[in-house]
Amino acid sequence: MDIHQLTRTLHTRNDSKIVMMVADGLGGLPMEAGGPTELEAAATPNLDRLASRGVQGASIPVLPGISPGSGPGHLGLFGYDPLTYQIGRGALEATGIGFALQPGDVAIRCNFCTLDEAGRITDRRAGRIPTEQSTVLVERLRQVQVPGVEIFVEPVKEHRFVVVLRGEGLGGNVADTDPQETGVPPRDPLAIDEGSQRTAEVATAFLAQAAELLADEEIANFHTMRGFASRPELPTYEEVYGLRAAAIAVYPMYKGLAQLVGMEVVGQPQTLDEQVDLLAACWDDHDFFFLHFKYTDSTGEDGDFEGKRERTEQFDAVIPRVVELSPDVLIVTGDHSTPSYLKQHSWHPVPTLLVSDCCRPDGLTEFNESSCIHGGLGQFEAKYLMSLALANAGRLGKYGA
Amino acid sequence: MDIHQLTRTLHTRNDSKIVMMVADGLGGLPMEAGGPTELEAAATPNLDRLASRGVQGASIPVLPGISPGSGPGHLGLFGYDPLTYQIGRGALEATGIGFALQPGDVAIRCNFCTLDEAGRITDRRAGRIPTEQSTVLVERLRQVQVPGVEIFVEPVKEHRFVVVLRGEGLGGNVADTDPQETGVPPRDPLAIDEGSQRTAEVATAFLAQAAELLADEEIANFHTMRGFASRPELPTYEEVYGLRAAAIAVYPMYKGLAQLVGMEVVGQPQTLDEQVDLLAACWDDHDFFFLHFKYTDSTGEDGDFEGKRERTEQFDAVIPRVVELSPDVLIVTGDHSTPSYLKQHSWHPVPTLLVSDCCRPDGLTEFNESSCIHGGLGQFEAKYLMSLALANAGRLGKYGA
Repeated sequence: MDIHQLTRTLHTRNDSKIVMMVADGLGGLPMEAGGPTELEAAATPNLDRLASRGVQGASIPVLPGISPGSGPGHLGLFGYDPLTYQIGRGALEATGIGFALQPGDVAIRCNFCTLDEAGRITDRRAGRIPTEQSTVLVERLRQVQVPGVEIFVEPVKEHRFVVVLRGEGLGGNVADTDPQETGVPPRDPLAIDEGSQRTAEVATAFLAQAAELLADEEIANFHTMRGFASRPELPTYEEVYGLRAAAIAVYPMYKGLAQLVGMEVVGQPQTLDEQVDLLAACWDDHDFFFLHFKYTDSTGEDGDFEGKRERTEQFDAVIPRVVELSPDVLIVTGDHSTPSYLKQHSWHPVPTLLVSDCCRPDGLTEFNESSCIHGGLGQFEAKYLMSLALANAGRLGKYGA
Repeated sequence: MDIHQLTRTLHTRNDSKIVMMVADGLGGLPMEAGGPTELEAAATPNLDRLASRGVQGASIPVLPGISPGSGPGHLGLFGYDPLTYQIGRGALEATGIGFALQPGDVAIRCNFCTLDEAGRITDRRAGRIPTEQSTVLVERLRQVQVPGVEIFVEPVKEHRFVVVLRGEGLGGNVADTDPQETGVPPRDPLAIDEGSQRTAEVATAFLAQAAELLADEEIANFHTMRGFASRPELPTYEEVYGLRAAAIAVYPMYKGLAQLVGMEVVGQPQTLDEQVDLLAACWDDHDFFFLHFKYTDSTGEDGDFEGKRERTEQFDAVIPRVVELSPDVLIVTGDHSTPSYLKQHSWHPVPTLLVSDCCRPDGLTEFNESSCIHGGLGQFEAKYLMSLALANAGRLGKYGA
């Protein structure tokens, strides 16, 4: 049984406030045997103080051994089973640039490419042309028109851009046109199911016009289409939890993911302090607040142990300002681990802390990887964090009599 | 896979005895930061002595964050997935008064109500008439006869009573007749599916006769019908575990729940000591013994921390008498937590202890909330307690070769 089948029927409403602070890639590893993790090396007096009041655990993002991308990592934290709900590549790419997909939209990842005179691909990435250059070409492609369909063309980075089709009856199952090799022509966009026939037709029309618009280009004289994907059908926070949720994030990807579950994206913060300013400013208008901090992940991916340690301390430093708002439930977690040692997302369980006046404290006085495995939440799948949050906020009724 | 698919095929029989002592609502919370829980405040030398020999864990009644009622709480302990097996409201009400439902029975919760001259409800609870008064009316309703159906009418409390229909082809899907508001007439009992057509007809006939039998009453001149429910189809302890099980409980609800899974309800004990007397007396006739202690829950629901502490000590005091019987497997647990701090059932994991000569002791010397999270059973869903019990009793064969 999906946990949402329970929360959907059992949730109640009250005036409580729930804050979920996500330090992206929070979990780490020692750089050498016996050494500390980034979080253990960091001075985190505020998190440790919270630990004494709260209950800890180690959250498993998907399943043991499975390292998630940002999509499934966050869906899990939001309480959506990341194995049930999947975000197609095109939809994730659009989400990643902050494009607000609507139900029924189909998003497509596109690569500028180079064709020879016979129409065969000679470079699948058009020499990785600089973003400034591809942005100009993307703007040119906005001239493409297909009757009955609204079309959005958005730059991403270098040779990559996104096309979003909006209209009636557009399925998301269309085969990639990128043949994944050079020396052959791009494929036609072929519908994989009946319901995607119209999408394939629109894509074919788009490519024909794009060929003309790009004909004079020396390098980027065509483009491929990959990862066709409908906007995933995710029930909203309002529906499954009865929560008016706000997302306070700096990066487009996390705003986009929050939007997919019906959170309202608040403001345009550029720093963590601005994020907390916004949190305070919109306190009365929402019940749930997702606050995303990126740099524990990016430093980890860079293999920058010291950098990640510093970013962790920066994260710790804003905790008192959040505590001052007196949330009824305060959660600190990460969407996955990003150990500097591995320079990539990993499967390791993520230190997770929950503080409320009715959590059952576990006697721990530090918050980190070594501590959390002795915590009262045990090891648990991240998808259960939201039902714990609701329960601690007094927002879940009893199951059965 | 349902754990019963394994136990059904792997169980074997031997002379071992398994005792499951359930202190209802056992888990608790501190009343103030840094304070003890009820179980931690209680002097429990006998449970602590058992802890040194056994293995502990924290059992999750349903799923993280989900607070169960008595029904799902006990089904979980009995090894029946509480999300798969659900007990309808009418069936639980009948069970709660100790009515032994048989397969095919349909149970209906009824409320005496008051109608005005135009047949509109003026009071949905007939002024909450006293139980003595409603018991007389219930006896009068036993005159109702519908050909081909055996009918039972049983008092519950105040304006509430239960009707059970026994006969061929009675489905449980009939809509409530209670309109949930006053100023309108009660609804007709309408079948929701084909298989419940006959039930709706019988209910209609019952209501027509009831209207006549109650016509002269000033206040309770009619009744509504709600929560139609078939007896849930639960496989028996004998079938899924190969166990001859006995239930030794004071309160009707727990006898009823035990009966639903095929346990034999033994005796009419009024005290915990009498329950242990009965345990000893029926020792040779059964393999499994469910012993239910109510007062750790009721004191918790009253918010009576001291009372719950005392009741916990009372529970501890009978442990030596149970140990003296030398059960092969002795389990001490609760169906959920009922913290005095919350005055209600909660989602917090329940301290659970298992002692057998082949359990793997975890070095813990106390039994309580703080201790159990470090136990060898870890955190586990309550539905797995029975397979652990069978294994420790040498009653489960190997899975696969």
